[in-house]
Amino acid sequence: MQVLSVKMAQPTTRQVEVLNKLNFEEFVEKLGNIVEKSPMVAAAVWSKRPFCSLQDVHKAIGDFIDGLPIYGKEGLLRCFPDLAGKLTREGRLSADSTGEQRSAGLFDLTTEEQTNIARLNSRYKEKFGFRFVLCARLNKKDAILAGLKTRINNSKDEEIKTGIGEAKKICWLRLVDVVQRERVGVIANL
Amino acid sequence: MQVLSVKMAQPTTRQVEVLNKLNFEEFVEKLGNIVEKSPMVAAAVWSKRPFCSLQDVHKAIGDFIDGLPIYGKEGLLRCFPDLAGKLTREGRLSADSTGEQRSAGLFDLTTEEQTNIARLNSRYKEKFGFRFVLCARLNKKDAILAGLKTRINNSKDEEIKTGIGEAKKICWLRLVDVVQRERVGVIANL
Repeated sequence: MQVLSVKMAQPTTRQVEVLNKLNFEEFVEKLGNIVEKSPMVAAAVWSKRPFCSLQDVHKAIGDFIDGLPIYGKEGLLRCFPDLAGKLTREGRLSADSTGEQRSAGLFDLTTEEQTNIARLNSRYKEKFGFRFVLCARLNKKDAILAGLKTRINNSKDEEIKTGIGEAKKICWLRLVDVVQRERVGVIANL
Repeated sequence: MQVLSVKMAQPTTRQVEVLNKLNFEEFVEKLGNIVEKSPMVAAAVWSKRPFCSLQDVHKAIGDFIDGLPIYGKEGLLRCFPDLAGKLTREGRLSADSTGEQRSAGLFDLTTEEQTNIARLNSRYKEKFGFRFVLCARLNKKDAILAGLKTRINNSKDEEIKTGIGEAKKICWLRLVDVVQRERVGVIANL
């Protein structure tokens, strides 16, 4: 997993204090989409409070995901939207996904780029039965297109592993976003 | 689990044919909320196609839920709305929950009934750390109030078991609804 550079402006215990104090309704409201369209995951890890740090929250999410059966992991990957897909074009992505896909330049594709990504996304879904998941905020459109072209040749097992790894990176960045919105002193260099 | 009376107008294989033919995007679009706000569950069981019958789909959903760790089951129960809660009063329930709570008479409570249910819901959440889940379509408001008063005295383990059982009943009725909307010949006496 790629190392994410996150500077902590306060001791880590201070940063999660605000999360530890939330009741489950507030926790799910704020963290419900840190795994795309899967509020059940945040709702589950609420049971694991108190957390020592943001990394601890992220690890709890990761542990939950790792504990899912293979078809559960596939299900999780099916809940992400296509990169530069129909929902992107129609403005129907979640707020999180909109920001992520915008940062990768997926709202500014040429017709040729759009056609290429759409064709590869379709082939990927047909081959694997779940979506190509890649952390758009850590990649630009050229890297995404290259990733699709390469990863489509992988085995299903490799792609579940890679896709889940990317979902965890997305989750981490969204988690940092939530805490930043709560103004608890995280400064993230992303 | 309470026996649900469902008359099948066609051989069961015919009724699930339409579901077996869906790609995962269509499957999740149609069945995404049969477990409240947990599209990952339907997305996961898509891997288990082909299904022999609606009961087979429901069993696959139940098997997935039963395979979750205890805190995953708690997470699932946290994704349901309060019965006659804030979302009900504010008209912000999911379409499925709106119909279910309406059928139980939860939109037509007296102020006293509302106050009683709100107080018991709060006590229940405080005691157990998840929501009181009960299949509203199989109960009326008096039975719901009585259920809250009784179940609040149970142990946490008992309530996880009971709540998950109720979530499965809700899931079954929603599944039948989906298939009815698809007009594949299920006649359900609910």
